[in-house]
Amino acid sequence: MPETVAVIGAGLVGCLAAVALAKRGYEVTLFDYRLDPRLATTQDRNLRSINLAISARGITSLEYVDKEISKRVLKDIIPMQGRMIHDLKGRQEAQKYGLFGECINSIDRGVLNNSLLDEVDNLENITLKFGHKLSQIKFTSAAKQTCVFTTDEVSTTEEYAFDFVLGCDGAYSSTRAQMQRELRMNFSQEYIDCCYIELYVPPAKEHNPEFNGKFAISPNHLHIWPRGNYMLIALANGDGSFTSTFFGPWSLVESLDTRSKIQDFLITNFPDAVEIIGLKQAVDAFESHPRGALMCVECSPYHLSQGRAIILGDAAHSMVPFYGQGMNCGFEDVRVLMQLLDKHSGNRAAAFEEYSYKRHIDLVSIIKLAKTNYKEMSHGVTSSLYLLRKKLDTLLGRALKDKWLPLYTMVSFRADIPYHKAIQIEQRQKRILAYLQAAIIAMTSLGGLGFYKLLRRALNNRR
Amino acid sequence: MPETVAVIGAGLVGCLAAVALAKRGYEVTLFDYRLDPRLATTQDRNLRSINLAISARGITSLEYVDKEISKRVLKDIIPMQGRMIHDLKGRQEAQKYGLFGECINSIDRGVLNNSLLDEVDNLENITLKFGHKLSQIKFTSAAKQTCVFTTDEVSTTEEYAFDFVLGCDGAYSSTRAQMQRELRMNFSQEYIDCCYIELYVPPAKEHNPEFNGKFAISPNHLHIWPRGNYMLIALANGDGSFTSTFFGPWSLVESLDTRSKIQDFLITNFPDAVEIIGLKQAVDAFESHPRGALMCVECSPYHLSQGRAIILGDAAHSMVPFYGQGMNCGFEDVRVLMQLLDKHSGNRAAAFEEYSYKRHIDLVSIIKLAKTNYKEMSHGVTSSLYLLRKKLDTLLGRALKDKWLPLYTMVSFRADIPYHKAIQIEQRQKRILAYLQAAIIAMTSLGGLGFYKLLRRALNNRR
Repeated sequence: MPETVAVIGAGLVGCLAAVALAKRGYEVTLFDYRLDPRLATTQDRNLRSINLAISARGITSLEYVDKEISKRVLKDIIPMQGRMIHDLKGRQEAQKYGLFGECINSIDRGVLNNSLLDEVDNLENITLKFGHKLSQIKFTSAAKQTCVFTTDEVSTTEEYAFDFVLGCDGAYSSTRAQMQRELRMNFSQEYIDCCYIELYVPPAKEHNPEFNGKFAISPNHLHIWPRGNYMLIALANGDGSFTSTFFGPWSLVESLDTRSKIQDFLITNFPDAVEIIGLKQAVDAFESHPRGALMCVECSPYHLSQGRAIILGDAAHSMVPFYGQGMNCGFEDVRVLMQLLDKHSGNRAAAFEEYSYKRHIDLVSIIKLAKTNYKEMSHGVTSSLYLLRKKLDTLLGRALKDKWLPLYTMVSFRADIPYHKAIQIEQRQKRILAYLQAAIIAMTSLGGLGFYKLLRRALNNRR
Repeated sequence: MPETVAVIGAGLVGCLAAVALAKRGYEVTLFDYRLDPRLATTQDRNLRSINLAISARGITSLEYVDKEISKRVLKDIIPMQGRMIHDLKGRQEAQKYGLFGECINSIDRGVLNNSLLDEVDNLENITLKFGHKLSQIKFTSAAKQTCVFTTDEVSTTEEYAFDFVLGCDGAYSSTRAQMQRELRMNFSQEYIDCCYIELYVPPAKEHNPEFNGKFAISPNHLHIWPRGNYMLIALANGDGSFTSTFFGPWSLVESLDTRSKIQDFLITNFPDAVEIIGLKQAVDAFESHPRGALMCVECSPYHLSQGRAIILGDAAHSMVPFYGQGMNCGFEDVRVLMQLLDKHSGNRAAAFEEYSYKRHIDLVSIIKLAKTNYKEMSHGVTSSLYLLRKKLDTLLGRALKDKWLPLYTMVSFRADIPYHKAIQIEQRQKRILAYLQAAIIAMTSLGGLGFYKLLRRALNNRR
């Protein structure tokens, strides 16, 4: 008899975990409290999505689970080679992400989720149950974990027993809450003072020969309108549109309490964006779309003893979206857990234990990186000292290859380097960079401005 | 019509808050999920209590609410003038808490809770409802908050509407969980690696003329058997017994998994304690009493907008028991909130807002102090440098009075100094002490040991 598992949450991480477990021979039941999103109409959209950027860790994990599935679900991704910074006058400046042209990839969350659900449907040993809201888990000391669900029929409950439970039910995880009743779990949730609002950039009205005809701005960049403590971003969709998101402090958003204030604010700060969104549409969206909160969640450990339960994805480590790593990290969770199950020949108790013990430092690291990256994104690149250091970082990265790795490269393009290792390497390089920078400044003052100009030209030529 | 309030939790803080609000004219309903503890038999005891030490902040707050009530509920307290340190050979050494004989006071949690419930019964505008477990609060935007309870009858629910809700339902607060659904509350819970087990020291078998006849050891000290990363403590009860508590790392406790291991451990580490507890009783208790976990809870803010709800006591700030401040701080919450209601002439929205804003820094401060005090308690006073500094601290405190205040004095005996202020003052004094200490050591090495001996004698004479 195969072991049975309840995967709670049919979002991105839940679907991938279900597939990975099914392919290992487990009998999987995948539950979600929502109805099947593939049956939803446009009106059902929650208007709160932030487009995803899938990069090395996400892709590697998908391929690890199944190369063919990876190909199918990623067929519509749009590569983004860098940021496109929009200033107040509408001028655009591109900044590359990778040293050698590596890209991150824009994909709509809903589209990716639906493709993964299709893959779930293709597998015989996964049963998919929508409209099932987890209300309780009765953990027993070893054999069976009984999950209680409320279903759409008001006050109907259903109970199922499984060998173990895998919670992929997001930042407000019910699985986690049930586990907290069983074990001493350290836990924190922290809201950052930032509200987000989804906006929508329609496809170009007229044929735009510059960008495949249909896009109003480059689809191959992550567009940013950095304005200090607030910003607008936009990521391309396959149909020529962009999903755009405004981020700003709650007090700012709440102060824009009339249509005319919103209109003035948008025109003053994002004139070129307003032009492609449409003024009325932009104001409508800003006024009426739901306002999202951003929360970081940390906890530890992630599992219950005896291999009875474990949480992955946002349920274990919700992070702010500013490093584009939330989903990538969640997919990596799946890969790491599967590798540990292999290492321990399917001994769940040992695999879960090692997962909690080893994965924590990486999760804490990326949560922190994501939080600090808000400043870099929203303030743009301004100080000339910062620019000099950044250019040196790139120059050394290109010249020394694997011996010098910029942080962004390690996080986004090197799935083989764990997050915490990336931070360690970055710390060391930072010290060297500071030293080099000081040396350059000293030489510049000794040798006059000539040397500095020469160096700047050299650096610029390498871009 | 008076405003109506649901106080959730009839523990120490809930009872005091109910009394304070009732005396201000609010119509109070006080709910608790337990049955009336005054009807409980000895068998019902949960065997997990740690005796309380009530000090200035707790007493001042009780008196602030009602001087007569304070007198009545505190009539059986036993003053403790200091710690009594027990070494491995059973030798005892007293350390004073106050500079001028100030005491903290031992009281049994159950006894205090029952006296407060009696006071609640005396007030006409408090309705007391036991056996009511909060399951949901439907917060509406302004007027009425509907509280849903499950009662002892299985699957019966009762609903009541109130103007506002005051949550005093402890570290695992349901009120807090309900509020978290309504607002962006930062929250953390952290378990420390420490398990506690309640033991019991019976009254002296024979008449003990030294300690009022009935106590086996001094009732006027908080007894500590410090043993590095674990310890035993004991606080006196009115009947001649002591409530004793063992604290130690989980791995240590779990390693003592046979009666003979427990027996060896207790005899080796706490020979004199085992003698007064009784060997069999000590081993029985250690083996069979429930093992408690210690958790810190921090959150912010503490209230819902429009004066709809607020949390006090452990629900808002659970701390480890090592500074004896948990209940004192909870009582102080009540006083601070009442003073703010007065200041804002009963405008709850304004009072709650100011409470969240101002109280946070004090709560975070005492949570941190309590955590760091574990080390001081369990390691005892060992290093001679530490002892020198401690003596200087005391000496300066006695000589300079209000101009020099040891931290313990500020926290335990000065309700007029907020916790965060106490830490600030301590930081400044610490720098001065370090400087003085360095100077003394320098003078000692210059002037030979003669000076040091003279100084030590001077310091000792002042004790």
